[in-house]
Amino acid sequence: MRILSLECASVSASAALTDDDKLLGESFLATALKHSRTLMPMTEALLSVSETPISSVDLFAVTVGPGSFTGVRIGVAATKGMADAAGKPCFPVSALEAAAYPFLEGCETVCAVMDARCMQVYTALFQNGERRTPDEALTIEALGERLGQIPGQILLVGDGTELVYKTLQEKLGERLMTAPAQLRLPRASSVAFLARAHMARGEAPVEATKLSPVYLRLPQAQRELNKKTKQKEQTV
Amino acid sequence: MRILSLECASVSASAALTDDDKLLGESFLATALKHSRTLMPMTEALLSVSETPISSVDLFAVTVGPGSFTGVRIGVAATKGMADAAGKPCFPVSALEAAAYPFLEGCETVCAVMDARCMQVYTALFQNGERRTPDEALTIEALGERLGQIPGQILLVGDGTELVYKTLQEKLGERLMTAPAQLRLPRASSVAFLARAHMARGEAPVEATKLSPVYLRLPQAQRELNKKTKQKEQTV
Repeated sequence: MRILSLECASVSASAALTDDDKLLGESFLATALKHSRTLMPMTEALLSVSETPISSVDLFAVTVGPGSFTGVRIGVAATKGMADAAGKPCFPVSALEAAAYPFLEGCETVCAVMDARCMQVYTALFQNGERRTPDEALTIEALGERLGQIPGQILLVGDGTELVYKTLQEKLGERLMTAPAQLRLPRASSVAFLARAHMARGEAPVEATKLSPVYLRLPQAQRELNKKTKQKEQTV
Repeated sequence: MRILSLECASVSASAALTDDDKLLGESFLATALKHSRTLMPMTEALLSVSETPISSVDLFAVTVGPGSFTGVRIGVAATKGMADAAGKPCFPVSALEAAAYPFLEGCETVCAVMDARCMQVYTALFQNGERRTPDEALTIEALGERLGQIPGQILLVGDGTELVYKTLQEKLGERLMTAPAQLRLPRASSVAFLARAHMARGEAPVEATKLSPVYLRLPQAQRELNKKTKQKEQTV
């Protein structure tokens, strides 16, 4: 099965092409350029350089969150568009699981963390290759309490790695480790391999029209509006 | 320092763009297409999508071997061309070191192996993040003898991983581990970070005209010619 996968839920963007368990090609970008400007050109370049017609793609996989609201919407919209036009199904993947994926085999405990601003992180915990907690938005303090109860070394991965490491290093000491810098951000290849693994366990792909972003919190604009509305109600 | 790096010494091709310790972008391809057909288009796409003028590149890094003779020559020739035109220096990197790089921090013993055909491999050993043996061409049997004397777990990485694992598994048992499939082939990002690390230790870059492939064995055509010449001499 040939999968075209996209990932742009956080600071980086990437596109990958896989055939069963083989990675055919991958593009990755972590510049200051907007995903709306880079994602489709890099996907087109990948298909063109690998001489792959989009009609040969059997499934479109994408990270649907958690992460940057705009990033997630760009990835999901691009995937819906391509899958709908090609008449092929989609598979939604967690961005935290995609970040953790390269380390699930080799590390006992992997904690994926994405900076959710305001000293919060999106996080998920994996042990012995299996997911232990759902994707959640937690304060770094609450994450520290959770990790404090886990014995042994904990590998941090994701764009929140440095922030969490700096904040919790004193509390957790040498048990806290960080993934190598160049492997810290999620890659589209992991998205494709995870889609394949989930489908092998019986999970079904979805129609392009049914693919949706997964938000763990309300967008900042909505939160600010709610706050203002509440203040107004209180003053009325 | 901005580095453009290329890697196509074995079955895969990749190009990467780094800025100091930051990976700006990377393209990777492992299809049946020839490197001569894919390497420059994927490099151009990387520069174009990341909106990076080639004049902003300070250094060109490339794997100079060991590996496929044709692959190494394509990567070295492309690098020499770009560096010479841009008037910037080059840095040669071992393809085995590039394959091992992502695992040097996390694993005690890493053995990089590339299939050199005829039950031989190109190989190099790394322990605690440091190189222990030079790049060599060895029979898999001789490699087995060497690895048999090393205590603890040994991580195999490189395009010879499966071949060496299958051949030596019986002898070395559970001590022998394999890198995850999607991280087994060398990446151009590792080439750039290794160039940076070697330069930080005082190694100097070279002029484009002085950059050369590093061959550990004579090309097959030369070996066959030598064999025939020898046979002829013996019959005379």
